[in-house]
Amino acid sequence: MMWVTSPACTELEVVVMDWLGKMCGLPKEFLCSESKTGGGVIQGTASEVMLVNLVAAKNRSLKRLNLTSDPNAASKLVVYISNQTHSGAKKATMIAGIHASNVRVLETDPHTLALAPETLEKAILADEAAGLIPCYFISTIGTTSTTAYDPLGALGKISNAHHVWMHVDAAYAGAALVCPEYRHFIDGLEFADSFNFNPHKWLLVNFDCSASWVKNRNDIVDALSITPEYLRNKATESGEVFDFRDWQVPLGRRFRSLKLWFVMRSFGQTKMQEHIRHHIQMATDLEAWIKADDRFEIAYPRMLALVTMKLKAGNAATKRVYEHINSEGKFYLTHSIIGDNYIIRINIGTVTTQEKHVKALWDEILAVSTKVLSEP
Amino acid sequence: MMWVTSPACTELEVVVMDWLGKMCGLPKEFLCSESKTGGGVIQGTASEVMLVNLVAAKNRSLKRLNLTSDPNAASKLVVYISNQTHSGAKKATMIAGIHASNVRVLETDPHTLALAPETLEKAILADEAAGLIPCYFISTIGTTSTTAYDPLGALGKISNAHHVWMHVDAAYAGAALVCPEYRHFIDGLEFADSFNFNPHKWLLVNFDCSASWVKNRNDIVDALSITPEYLRNKATESGEVFDFRDWQVPLGRRFRSLKLWFVMRSFGQTKMQEHIRHHIQMATDLEAWIKADDRFEIAYPRMLALVTMKLKAGNAATKRVYEHINSEGKFYLTHSIIGDNYIIRINIGTVTTQEKHVKALWDEILAVSTKVLSEP
Repeated sequence: MMWVTSPACTELEVVVMDWLGKMCGLPKEFLCSESKTGGGVIQGTASEVMLVNLVAAKNRSLKRLNLTSDPNAASKLVVYISNQTHSGAKKATMIAGIHASNVRVLETDPHTLALAPETLEKAILADEAAGLIPCYFISTIGTTSTTAYDPLGALGKISNAHHVWMHVDAAYAGAALVCPEYRHFIDGLEFADSFNFNPHKWLLVNFDCSASWVKNRNDIVDALSITPEYLRNKATESGEVFDFRDWQVPLGRRFRSLKLWFVMRSFGQTKMQEHIRHHIQMATDLEAWIKADDRFEIAYPRMLALVTMKLKAGNAATKRVYEHINSEGKFYLTHSIIGDNYIIRINIGTVTTQEKHVKALWDEILAVSTKVLSEP
Repeated sequence: MMWVTSPACTELEVVVMDWLGKMCGLPKEFLCSESKTGGGVIQGTASEVMLVNLVAAKNRSLKRLNLTSDPNAASKLVVYISNQTHSGAKKATMIAGIHASNVRVLETDPHTLALAPETLEKAILADEAAGLIPCYFISTIGTTSTTAYDPLGALGKISNAHHVWMHVDAAYAGAALVCPEYRHFIDGLEFADSFNFNPHKWLLVNFDCSASWVKNRNDIVDALSITPEYLRNKATESGEVFDFRDWQVPLGRRFRSLKLWFVMRSFGQTKMQEHIRHHIQMATDLEAWIKADDRFEIAYPRMLALVTMKLKAGNAATKRVYEHINSEGKFYLTHSIIGDNYIIRINIGTVTTQEKHVKALWDEILAVSTKVLSEP
């Protein structure tokens, strides 16, 4: 699937990804229209994006150190994630052949679940001292369990100083960037090498549509192009056309920009913003009800439309409430375990969800909790 | 995307892939209903399937040799392909971190373009003697350029004897297996570890739908599962339910079995067979016309509905005819270069193609060739 296979398919994607990037206030380094090497592409899932950028980071590190011809050099490359990073990161390392002993799972702050810059720096320095090669770091804006977010600026500066590729995974939270009031979460994104979020999660687009941007697309193409050097064409090299098969895992690809474009056309920016704000408002209401009831507490800070809660009575009671509600089949909640903390996750994210549904769930939580807490 | 995310999505895929496997006469080792460890799954593209099986093969080799804890062991793994293997194979090695110096591109027979068993065996023995670990071999039934096919039985026995994972790529040709008269091409498939073809190529299903079967699904899950050992559930272990996210690169997945099922329901086996036979008949007609004209020759043996041709006047004339026809915009042909041989590829594969279209193309080839051959 090169440009020539279907020029419209590639060209529309380039334009639509630029529109989406601007609509989300991304730094201009990631926009094709405003930088010489940046650009966006639609992939299938955030886990594929993590993998593609890891493969590019490996290649970039080895090239920088003139180690591409050494078959053993790759075994020195180290990947950094936090204990809140999505499990797709670990899967990416397994596929890309990073040995488990070279994957650092860094501890986060127990209250915010954010990764402290000094934790990353310490790990990088230790690996450098051990003769290893720090290569790739995945930072998260809106973790899966609790929508925790890392301080991008400070982490990015450390990554840059040590030639580590920083990828920012905002799979869920990225959709909120269409609202300017949430863009402070990506302060410092200009220090990252790549950024990704999934419009199929919370931006009205059907699965699959994972929006991925890179600061230097040549890093990706260098690592993934299977066209021998002597067959590369001038158009591709000049940056005038893209061969998107070289930006992703599969060689074939679908015309996914159409659905993203039609969501933009159908809703418009204002309605897309209203959609996000409406969900966050419903989550804020639910959060207020939880806080106002002495039997419950908010488990971790709410960032967007995910509310995490638990019963003050403890893990066992929380788990009983959770399992009881799910067993009835009216509502389907999810849970997570953070350290010793069993929490219930309530995410307002479906396009048809209304106030009355959230209220009905709250009534159910109250009724079931009253029952559970009265049990011997 | 585990089983519990949408049981129907997984269950239908298991059943439909078994139906498709039976409809294609696959060895029972690959069928979920007729073996203890086999099974099929729908992936996006043949290149992803090559990658998934490579990752599984790496893990299987390292486990067998008790080398999983050695970060340097993977750099000893060797991959075998032929010079006719699809370029997705090379891409898979790049993504999975197989160093280029450990990828053997084996020469094929200059006339049939098939890989000789002794060529594979010699390469494997040489690598073993050098202390390397033969790991993964991709055999092809129906190569991209000319639909050449490898002798699976002999190649499979060698692979098995040396613990090399043999993957069979039949991306295009596999569709023809719905017709019993073409099943001799997969004689010996029972020696392979995995098999793949793309119903989206030639079996009336829209892109993407790449049908992949493995003999031992545990090899795949072992290599790709991100669920820690202590969280694996009894249902998964028993083989009663599958978590298809552990059979593929991405963690998310679509409900692709629906479209495959509806093609089966809409057309039925007989009409699917007629579709394949009709295309092959049109290709056979074209082949006869080419053979009957002294100015042309068939470049490589026709296997199914791909006809490869050239002008006896040589590469330059063939290329001029090819470029002239494409420049007019009525027909769009593709070409290939095999060794020193410039060939035109004509594939009858679109559902709406009729005899009159093939005849019109032939008339065009005749007219343009007459013109080109009369030029000074």
